[in-house]
Amino acid sequence: MKFCSECGTPVAQLVPAGDNRARDVCPACATIFYSNPKMVVGCLPEWEDKVLLCRRAIEPQYGKWTLPAGFMENHETTEQGAVRETQEEAGANVQPLHLYTLCNLPHISQVYLMFRARLLDLNFSAGEESLEVRLFAEDEIPWDQIAFLTIEYTLRQYFADRRTGEFPLRVADIPRRNHGK
Amino acid sequence: MKFCSECGTPVAQLVPAGDNRARDVCPACATIFYSNPKMVVGCLPEWEDKVLLCRRAIEPQYGKWTLPAGFMENHETTEQGAVRETQEEAGANVQPLHLYTLCNLPHISQVYLMFRARLLDLNFSAGEESLEVRLFAEDEIPWDQIAFLTIEYTLRQYFADRRTGEFPLRVADIPRRNHGK
Repeated sequence: MKFCSECGTPVAQLVPAGDNRARDVCPACATIFYSNPKMVVGCLPEWEDKVLLCRRAIEPQYGKWTLPAGFMENHETTEQGAVRETQEEAGANVQPLHLYTLCNLPHISQVYLMFRARLLDLNFSAGEESLEVRLFAEDEIPWDQIAFLTIEYTLRQYFADRRTGEFPLRVADIPRRNHGK
Repeated sequence: MKFCSECGTPVAQLVPAGDNRARDVCPACATIFYSNPKMVVGCLPEWEDKVLLCRRAIEPQYGKWTLPAGFMENHETTEQGAVRETQEEAGANVQPLHLYTLCNLPHISQVYLMFRARLLDLNFSAGEESLEVRLFAEDEIPWDQIAFLTIEYTLRQYFADRRTGEFPLRVADIPRRNHGK
C-alpha cells in the first residue's frame, strides 16, 4: 500500500510501539494498517459414490477442475461461506457435514477450509466462474487436470478415508508449486 | 476506507463486474479492495491436570483471563501462529497437538482457531500484553473473569471432553455478547 486509505497521505513502513514487525503506518493520522491471511472456504459435495467438480471458467487455472471454493466474506461463518461458494460456482444445494481439510499456504498467506457436504439434489449447473459441473466416480477423477494442490490433497485424502469410513480433520501445509500451478 | 491505497484517489462503493456485492473501487486506477475475515490463532497449553491462562494487560478486557491467542500474520501457518502467540503473550514453549476449536464470530468477521498444546516446561512468564500468567486446575478457573466467549467455550468444552479423553474438533458460532464483553 502506498497511501493511507483514511486520509490519503503517503504511508511509511515502521514498527508500531508494542509491535514486533513493520506495518504500513500513516504519519498524518497515525492509522496502522494490518495485512492478514485470507480464508478460502469450500465444499466436497458427495452424491452416492460420486463427487461434484467444477471446471474453471476463470484464471488462474482456466479449464482445470476444482471443488467449489472461494474467499470467505465478512459477516458469514465458515460453513455459510462454503455453502454460498458451492451455490455460486456449481449452482448446487448442499448440506455441509463436517470441516474436513485445513490447508495452510503460508507462501501466499491463505488458509483453505474444505467441508464434506451432502448434495441435496441433482439440480446443479455451472455458475459464471465455471465452464461445466459434473459428478465423478473415483476412477473418473482427472488427476492431471486438478487446478490446485489444496483440492488434489482434499480429494486424495477423501478417497483414502472413504475406505475406512472415518473422516477426521486432516491438516496439511501445502508448499509452493514448482510449475506455477 | 476513503482513499485508494495505491494512488490516493477517493474510492467509490460499487459492485464490480462479475461480482455480487459492493466493494471499495478506485475510479482512477480501477483497483478493487476486498475486505475479508481475520483469523485469530492460539493455544490451550496443558501441564498435567492444569491449563495456562494469561491475564490481559491491554484492552479490550483489561485484567480478565484468556488463553494466549492473537491475529494470524502473513506467511505463517495456523499452527506457527498459535505457537508464536503463546510465546509472545505467555513466554511459554508449547508443542501444539491438534486443532481443537473453531469459533465463528460473523458479527465481527473473525474466526478463532484454538489448538490443544503441551507445555514443554515451566519457564513461562508474562509478555508485554499480559499482567500475569499462571496454571489453573479445573476447579480454580475464574469463570466470571474470562475475557472472551470464544475462550470460555474452548475451556468449558475442554474440561467436558477431558472426562472422556476424546478431543474431536469442536465448532461453534459465537453470538454477539449483550454486555460488551
